[in-house]
Amino acid sequence: MIRIPFHEVQKTIESAFLKAGLASEIAATCARIHAETSQDGVYSHGLNRVEKFVDYVQQGWVNPSAKPSLVFQLGNLETYDGHLGPGITNALFAMDRAMELAREMGLGLVSLRNTTHWMRGGSYGWHAAEKGFMSLCWTNTESCMPAWGAQSAGIGNNPFVMAIPRKEGHVVLDMAMSQYSYGKLEITRLKEEELPYPGGFNAAGELTSIPAEIEESRRILPTGYWKGSSLAVMLDLFAGILSQGNTTASVDKAGYGNCGACSQVFIAIDPMKITNQTFIDQALEATIAQLHNSQPAEKGTQIQYPGERSLRTRKENQALGVPVHEAVWERVKGLAGLK
Amino acid sequence: MIRIPFHEVQKTIESAFLKAGLASEIAATCARIHAETSQDGVYSHGLNRVEKFVDYVQQGWVNPSAKPSLVFQLGNLETYDGHLGPGITNALFAMDRAMELAREMGLGLVSLRNTTHWMRGGSYGWHAAEKGFMSLCWTNTESCMPAWGAQSAGIGNNPFVMAIPRKEGHVVLDMAMSQYSYGKLEITRLKEEELPYPGGFNAAGELTSIPAEIEESRRILPTGYWKGSSLAVMLDLFAGILSQGNTTASVDKAGYGNCGACSQVFIAIDPMKITNQTFIDQALEATIAQLHNSQPAEKGTQIQYPGERSLRTRKENQALGVPVHEAVWERVKGLAGLK
Repeated sequence: MIRIPFHEVQKTIESAFLKAGLASEIAATCARIHAETSQDGVYSHGLNRVEKFVDYVQQGWVNPSAKPSLVFQLGNLETYDGHLGPGITNALFAMDRAMELAREMGLGLVSLRNTTHWMRGGSYGWHAAEKGFMSLCWTNTESCMPAWGAQSAGIGNNPFVMAIPRKEGHVVLDMAMSQYSYGKLEITRLKEEELPYPGGFNAAGELTSIPAEIEESRRILPTGYWKGSSLAVMLDLFAGILSQGNTTASVDKAGYGNCGACSQVFIAIDPMKITNQTFIDQALEATIAQLHNSQPAEKGTQIQYPGERSLRTRKENQALGVPVHEAVWERVKGLAGLK
Repeated sequence: MIRIPFHEVQKTIESAFLKAGLASEIAATCARIHAETSQDGVYSHGLNRVEKFVDYVQQGWVNPSAKPSLVFQLGNLETYDGHLGPGITNALFAMDRAMELAREMGLGLVSLRNTTHWMRGGSYGWHAAEKGFMSLCWTNTESCMPAWGAQSAGIGNNPFVMAIPRKEGHVVLDMAMSQYSYGKLEITRLKEEELPYPGGFNAAGELTSIPAEIEESRRILPTGYWKGSSLAVMLDLFAGILSQGNTTASVDKAGYGNCGACSQVFIAIDPMKITNQTFIDQALEATIAQLHNSQPAEKGTQIQYPGERSLRTRKENQALGVPVHEAVWERVKGLAGLK
């Protein structure tokens, strides 16, 4: 791992995206989100996904010039077709639109169909929080996880995001419905370590913490066993029905790769339409104090609120540079024509 | 365990509630929900909670004659104060109101503060589904679980519900943020069994499947470790802020017992305003088929959709009678003046 200044990471990704045929504004936005994702410590969905995104554009699985079009509107409920445009700009568009509705009506729900991989789901929660909005959003995916009790993959890991704006650091949850991502399994295997808790089943059908065994069986574990499995199914059905788009079962058949033609939901709420800053501050600070003051299981640690670790990583990487795998960095520089 | 016909369970609970001072209509509704909860197999929150509810009324922690009053309204966003009225009738009122808003505007969000224990959260998802609405709802609670990494309880288990209407059986998820309830620990201990997966930490700080060890340490496990812990925090903050009510930190101080003065959120969506029955049927049936056709880990089993098991239990208990603990049943009959 080497560290590269944020600006250089962003500019390099932007050049790669321009070379891939993205229009300048779209290339800049997508590059910013990828670079911010790495900067926040979510390395699997930042710089590391650039090559795959470029490949998807080349395969025709992402249409770099498609823009979302309105297909349904009723009050503060809207549905857009993403026409396989870039997942990042489609998702930002949808969250922005939900915020516009919420600015007027307190609440906005925008669903999006036929979109593509949004990279880190948390990006849209952070984005809304930055603008002062509370938000929920989620996506479905192709089948990448066996439902609880199953051997074969039949459900998505369907990341789910909730976020609340807060001056001293937004409160942001970004959770996929698998206990670990395949990215985490790979990183752990490469370090020759075990997972801290079982992350799937081995070929013999036993829970295991050894990443290679799960990568082989493809039986990754739903978070909370039956609970994450059922929540994944519900998020999928809500996304598909609300957007009149694909559910996981039809994303599987779409043939546009990872999350190609998937469905998403974006809900924004303007808390200042409902209550006031003093009330919100008190609620947030009382809850964060209760977490911070909990007796830790491990001496010398402190319980964190959702989003606290990302913010600390961000600040560290802003100061020291964004950690990148040297080989990945060289290949992205290659895509950017910088070698 | 003995089996008692549903009608007799319901009528007996209703008599107990009338004797406790509930008005006839409220007693009938609360009794129906308790009886249906037991009938659906959620024994911890049905007949088994009747004595505790009556006790709460006697303590003055539940005001049997309080009705929700509107405190905020903007378009399809409304907030009510529950004035410590019965949690069941308050929650049904809020979900009914969310459905009325959705009937007009496609979408309705009702938040409710100062309410009391709603018993089984799933009741409100089933209720909305029965009327043709998709729904999400959740509640906060007092601190009953240590956050991930903590020894002392600082967060609620904050049950979360999502439901979709379906002719052949609604699709309903009802999940608390703990891996198991204390009720499940007790039942498992009484059977002298172990939990199928670790449900908390023992006094030595190790994960354990032995219920008594967790009951002693009070270190029940958040579902999915850090994931369920963070989701509980977000659900709590959303409920408190949207209702301008208590978060878990202030429910802890309210002094009205389990879930006294808690906050809840009810979101209803009218899917027929957005799409049509054919599309919904196809999405549901494709997803359910994908689950049913997954290769099971255990031969001879079939993967179920969320809500499928409740429906099967309901039908079985409708045919054979509702299983009740004889001692509990005798005590409730006592409260009803039937002994």
